[in-house]
Amino acid sequence: MFKLHPNFSNHAHIVDLDLCTVLLQDRAAYPWVLLVPRLPNLSKIMDLKIENQLKFVHEMDLAQNILWKLFLPEQLNVAAIGNKTPQLHIHIIARYLNDPAWPDTVWDHSEQTPYTSENKKIMIENLQAAFTSKKMN
Amino acid sequence: MFKLHPNFSNHAHIVDLDLCTVLLQDRAAYPWVLLVPRLPNLSKIMDLKIENQLKFVHEMDLAQNILWKLFLPEQLNVAAIGNKTPQLHIHIIARYLNDPAWPDTVWDHSEQTPYTSENKKIMIENLQAAFTSKKMN
Repeated sequence: MFKLHPNFSNHAHIVDLDLCTVLLQDRAAYPWVLLVPRLPNLSKIMDLKIENQLKFVHEMDLAQNILWKLFLPEQLNVAAIGNKTPQLHIHIIARYLNDPAWPDTVWDHSEQTPYTSENKKIMIENLQAAFTSKKMN
Repeated sequence: MFKLHPNFSNHAHIVDLDLCTVLLQDRAAYPWVLLVPRLPNLSKIMDLKIENQLKFVHEMDLAQNILWKLFLPEQLNVAAIGNKTPQLHIHIIARYLNDPAWPDTVWDHSEQTPYTSENKKIMIENLQAAFTSKKMN
């Protein structure tokens, strides 16, 4: 049975898509969501059956389009890493030329400031509105 | 017209799949390949038409299975970053509990020792044999 990994227990919940739960990564410097397929015993992409990988790609594409249009970044970083949290999850991160880590990667960067509670609420609302409107298209 | 980005000009060529060219990243500490779709004007996954994303997923799955079976790692890191080389490419990296960067990510890690020429030759041969035999299945 699927159960969200305890390392994700403090992540704000954005929306449940058909396959994945979308969570907000609490880092104010980068618009950053996680897609977690709600299936048990997955630690890497190849653990998903190929038909679920194809569904996964559609949901990743939706999330990329939403981040691209909401946040107008320079680049999107998309990654399944899972060294520290071995439950399959995809990072989708909007990156800017003037963000604290550019052009390096963000995962081990020292800048980890969380959102203010007000900004976190706004981020969640904006992302929920975007995912909800796209799901209905 | 597609042309490989100059930053990849020193990467050893493993094989051409239907969509992607597979290259070896020259880092002796981690079995690491790059998949580069041979289509022009792509910098991120969402720039690929969805039918090509689906093809991409099949080739990524093939590469993950090959690295998993050849190198018996602990985890596979799969990522499209493209901050420094803005031509779409996916990193597929075999990670070990005792590799120099574990559990951190490898991209900005100081350990960047290349293969010896003998070991590089062996890596290329082993990967070519694996991809060639899988392509024929």
